[in-house]
Amino acid sequence: MTDEATAFVPGHVTGFFSAHPHDDPAVAGSRGAGVALSHGVRVTVRRTDATDGRSDETSGETASDDSSDDGETDGGAPGPTTLDGDAVSMPPVDAVRRSLGVPGAAVHAETPLPLGAGFGVSGAMALGTAYAANRVFGIGRSENELVDVAHCAEVEAGTGLGDVVAQARGGLPIRLEPGAPGHGAMDGVPARPRVEYVTFGEVSTEDVLSGDTTRLTAAGERALSDLRADPTPERLVSLSRRFAREAGLTTDRVAAIVADVRDAGGDASMAMLGDTVFAFGTALSDAGYDPEVCGVHPAGSSLVPE
Amino acid sequence: MTDEATAFVPGHVTGFFSAHPHDDPAVAGSRGAGVALSHGVRVTVRRTDATDGRSDETSGETASDDSSDDGETDGGAPGPTTLDGDAVSMPPVDAVRRSLGVPGAAVHAETPLPLGAGFGVSGAMALGTAYAANRVFGIGRSENELVDVAHCAEVEAGTGLGDVVAQARGGLPIRLEPGAPGHGAMDGVPARPRVEYVTFGEVSTEDVLSGDTTRLTAAGERALSDLRADPTPERLVSLSRRFAREAGLTTDRVAAIVADVRDAGGDASMAMLGDTVFAFGTALSDAGYDPEVCGVHPAGSSLVPE
Repeated sequence: MTDEATAFVPGHVTGFFSAHPHDDPAVAGSRGAGVALSHGVRVTVRRTDATDGRSDETSGETASDDSSDDGETDGGAPGPTTLDGDAVSMPPVDAVRRSLGVPGAAVHAETPLPLGAGFGVSGAMALGTAYAANRVFGIGRSENELVDVAHCAEVEAGTGLGDVVAQARGGLPIRLEPGAPGHGAMDGVPARPRVEYVTFGEVSTEDVLSGDTTRLTAAGERALSDLRADPTPERLVSLSRRFAREAGLTTDRVAAIVADVRDAGGDASMAMLGDTVFAFGTALSDAGYDPEVCGVHPAGSSLVPE
Repeated sequence: MTDEATAFVPGHVTGFFSAHPHDDPAVAGSRGAGVALSHGVRVTVRRTDATDGRSDETSGETASDDSSDDGETDGGAPGPTTLDGDAVSMPPVDAVRRSLGVPGAAVHAETPLPLGAGFGVSGAMALGTAYAANRVFGIGRSENELVDVAHCAEVEAGTGLGDVVAQARGGLPIRLEPGAPGHGAMDGVPARPRVEYVTFGEVSTEDVLSGDTTRLTAAGERALSDLRADPTPERLVSLSRRFAREAGLTTDRVAAIVADVRDAGGDASMAMLGDTVFAFGTALSDAGYDPEVCGVHPAGSSLVPE
């Protein structure tokens, strides 16, 4: 029990995916693969006046106190949410707070990553809120249970299908089976290349996921099968590029940059879903761009030691 | 493809466990919980004259070249294995090299942790060898496949049942179901406490695992159930202490130190299996001991960036 706690959650770029909707958000999700980034989101949760009652109620023992589990019984206005100091509306964060019975907790996030550009910032905020709130309020959930809460919040908000489980794992995550822990299954590409990216902003995740995903999903399943046969960073990028083309998602700006990178002898692809190009090694630099540079984050989400 | 690669694998202290032997080593394993340590093992794999043939043969594409998979067809003397500069015999490392088709590769490990004292050094060497050899020789396995190889090597050598999967995960791993990826299931305690330990050396893992494990396993299953109901670091230590007593494994030296720590208002337990005491926070320091100090390692095994 403490007054505040901070979690770090890596950013996550999806290279390719297939969509697997389901009525149960814990079963819904995506298959696919991507990159957990050393650039991520620091999420701090603090007690507020609105949470003081909760803090006393939950100082007890059991994790089987499920009275707050349905995410609906706990009313009250959502606590403040800020991103890099600005107030933001973030439905997955609100859903996590409700699900954990602390709707009024304050959530403050900081990140070098842009929102809505394919870096999983909303998933990171949901997952970081779950980890940090669990610590502040002594809620007593396990890591799988916290990932489940954040995954369901993200799915129900329509803001993502696979970022949360990938961000919980770290590395170069392969989503073998969709869904939260206990439903999904993960693997990883064993590598830690340098990562470069350039970004121009938003592509609407909701628009893509709410449309016809048949072609996208066929392309994503094919890419997954091919990556499993040869799980290397080089294949992850080339299969992502093929997926983006086959799924018809490549933006004009991304296509132009990828062409430049290929002309320079490298390879790159598009972040799903954002107007963003990512590459390994020095592929973007070698093509004359001035990319952001980070690494692969080998750990998934975790609390920052106090 | 490269001449050498280095992997870092966290040390792992098991607090409690139940043994689940099986004829298939990938299905065999343990349930239980423990601590992945920021103190770990750096494992470097290098080409040798004996591996030069392999390096050419495997510069190709597919991961479905399974000719070396049975771990028996590739003969030849095992390559050199050193630990902190001294030549050592390490059957799980030999088994990993054989399984990956590079029996002659050189393996050099460095660690601040003692061997045989309950820190999972043999598991770390097996897993680190798998990660680094995969990189050096372009073997094309996924992370799950590498963990499977190392887990099976450790089980067949009789040197451990659950360290490898815990070391692949990081954090405060809970082994919900025994076995390699695809068989086992993991969770974690969401916390990153400071870790203290004092160690006096070896307790034979083989002797315990080859004896009657009925009482041990009943105690371990009960501890696991109780930890799942309240997954906190404090419970992990207290349930580990109860397990060690019920299983009759507490050494006299460990019992004396744990009593001192409890007298000073803290808690501590025994590393399974070593003459080693571990605790969180400053529990050992507060009782007047001069412990080694490290942290929880949130990431599992991973390559060190080149």
